Amino acid sequence: MRDVYAVGIGITSFGRLEYPLSEIAAYPVMMALRDSGLREVDQLYVANMGSGRVNHQTGLASAVVDTLSLTPAGAEVIENGPASGASALKQGFFAVASGVHDVVAVTGAERMREVNNLEATEFVATLTHPIAESIYGVTLPSLAGMFTRAYMEKYGVTSRHLAMVAVKNQNNALLNEFAHLHQEISIEGILDSPESMTNNPFVADPLRFFDCCPVSDGGACVILASREVAEKTGRPLVRLAGVGQATDTHCVHEREEPTDLLAVRRAAKAAFQMAGVGPSDVDVAELHDAFTILEIVESEEAGFFKKGEGHLALERGETQRDGRLPINVSGGLKGRGHPVGATGIAQAHEIVLELRGEAGERQVEDPKVGFTCNFGGFGNNVVCLVFRREN
Amino acid sequence: MRDVYAVGIGITSFGRLEYPLSEIAAYPVMMALRDSGLREVDQLYVANMGSGRVNHQTGLASAVVDTLSLTPAGAEVIENGPASGASALKQGFFAVASGVHDVVAVTGAERMREVNNLEATEFVATLTHPIAESIYGVTLPSLAGMFTRAYMEKYGVTSRHLAMVAVKNQNNALLNEFAHLHQEISIEGILDSPESMTNNPFVADPLRFFDCCPVSDGGACVILASREVAEKTGRPLVRLAGVGQATDTHCVHEREEPTDLLAVRRAAKAAFQMAGVGPSDVDVAELHDAFTILEIVESEEAGFFKKGEGHLALERGETQRDGRLPINVSGGLKGRGHPVGATGIAQAHEIVLELRGEAGERQVEDPKVGFTCNFGGFGNNVVCLVFRREN
Repeated sequence: MRDVYAVGIGITSFGRLEYPLSEIAAYPVMMALRDSGLREVDQLYVANMGSGRVNHQTGLASAVVDTLSLTPAGAEVIENGPASGASALKQGFFAVASGVHDVVAVTGAERMREVNNLEATEFVATLTHPIAESIYGVTLPSLAGMFTRAYMEKYGVTSRHLAMVAVKNQNNALLNEFAHLHQEISIEGILDSPESMTNNPFVADPLRFFDCCPVSDGGACVILASREVAEKTGRPLVRLAGVGQATDTHCVHEREEPTDLLAVRRAAKAAFQMAGVGPSDVDVAELHDAFTILEIVESEEAGFFKKGEGHLALERGETQRDGRLPINVSGGLKGRGHPVGATGIAQAHEIVLELRGEAGERQVEDPKVGFTCNFGGFGNNVVCLVFRREN
Repeated sequence: MRDVYAVGIGITSFGRLEYPLSEIAAYPVMMALRDSGLREVDQLYVANMGSGRVNHQTGLASAVVDTLSLTPAGAEVIENGPASGASALKQGFFAVASGVHDVVAVTGAERMREVNNLEATEFVATLTHPIAESIYGVTLPSLAGMFTRAYMEKYGVTSRHLAMVAVKNQNNALLNEFAHLHQEISIEGILDSPESMTNNPFVADPLRFFDCCPVSDGGACVILASREVAEKTGRPLVRLAGVGQATDTHCVHEREEPTDLLAVRRAAKAAFQMAGVGPSDVDVAELHDAFTILEIVESEEAGFFKKGEGHLALERGETQRDGRLPINVSGGLKGRGHPVGATGIAQAHEIVLELRGEAGERQVEDPKVGFTCNFGGFGNNVVCLVFRREN
């Protein structure tokens, strides 16, 4: 198995974009090619969840490869719900590791503005079990609300902890020019002030408006390549050292212990094992905070903190940008935004930037190992990645 | 790079199926596991084009892995329009060849009965260029009609040649219990008889009803594995020896010579090169005859016959079941049916069956090398596979 390197990165602004989906997917590839100095790719993967339903377009990868004049390169769309991005990076990893391809561009894109927020919730609910969940009106926010309540009762997490995640991540986004939200918030403003009941209403009790990520358009790309190609680019050597994935029961209510996210635990373990490092080696992490509770729980299941103690580490400031283990310095899904198919790749984009030391104002101190967790369904399909800086 | 073997196969009946999409995808995996004697997989790929739009379901792969109790195996949906099936086999090839996974199930499924035939045409037209093609009302049958007319004028193909493809394939399907169509037809009946103008009306002149494949539900699976696993199964050793893919311009009218299918030519060449064989070594082939003209042209672009002479080989009976190079003995898309995401895998299923010598009444004589061509968009993304029997 050949080693695989992240040799180029690109990203669009996240938020409301005017241009077509195929161009949202293509633009970051162009930026990533420029970043790497490469001009051609053997293969293109496009991570996307909604093109067929939301944008009335299929065969999106063929459209993107043509838009970029990268024909006759191979091209496919990879779909794994909100974890489509990291899933596509996994395919790119296999393609290069196998020795078949030397350069693979992995882009992710979503254009959600075609639907309003209510329709977006309905669209994302197509991920739930059609007979056992969605026909009863279950949506992702409602599952997350019930999950949060159970977690609060079992482990002592409070609404204040949730708000601390929101404030940390959304304020981190202030330093990320590509982030969707550039609005400073405080615990006082979203939780304690008299106005908070109106400007931060309940979405799915106990989750409130500021506990949920926005609905965004956006795209991100990471180009993967063999070591030989990576060395030629002259860029810092960042290796995609670990790829782990695990699935769990489709129905949340079928899980033995609903407050456990077994797929995160297993995917992280597999990624660390392949990379030859452990959770304590990680210097910077991007976790899938579609809802604030998820960052806390993922930080535990990934092995950074003991089960049930993630909120205590958060309280101690350990996950702040200047803490022991900075989490979501990019702003996370909460602040950077969540264009579904792009998210996993945007996470990887941030880690590569940090490991290269190119993250500007939000650069963490000399990181060597980075970690991402991309969470599909309500934890039924999770992909974790470990990146290592090698020079 | 490790060698990759097809160790298990399974298929549903094609046609109109009553059960949900996730079960159409899951059932052939169960059959393929039984066929191989294996019980677990490391990874599952689901080839599908329409779940989001037609079936209002996303994250289908996670649903299938749960339906089969194959968790925590990794799972993704692969979408490349009508070539999704072979594209998914390509991902499976990478996963095993890289050494990361030993056993990968690749299933494909479509449940088209959710839409009527007109809506199905509109759905498939989501593959065309949104601004340069589809807004002008271009559909796949209309592109195929124009392509056929150009081919007739340039190379002397006639309606009779097209009918010969339809008759050959649909009658081959009579020997395939899983085929959608079990209706014997003749040139006389669909072309020469007075009734032919009513029972075989024009769909997109010069293409008529019997020149077009039906709209089908169905699923098919091929399990790929390392040589070590393949030997343990005790089944005949069939190697997936060549995987080739090429993209072409998204818009058909941008091609320098619209009667050339460059993506087929390049994908076939790449597949043969990897497999270390040439077109003359092929003993049995499954080509993508969504429209009758495509079988003729693909048989040329793949290198079996000279450009513009495919219809002459057809006339001489060379592509009949007992001919020099039997094409679409399964019935092809025309007779077996075309559940979009399943098609490329059903083609591979047929080739494995033939190479094993297990094709029953439609077995061709002692084949050693088999070939498939899975055609995405209107030739903008094509995947070709070469299989070799090794013992």
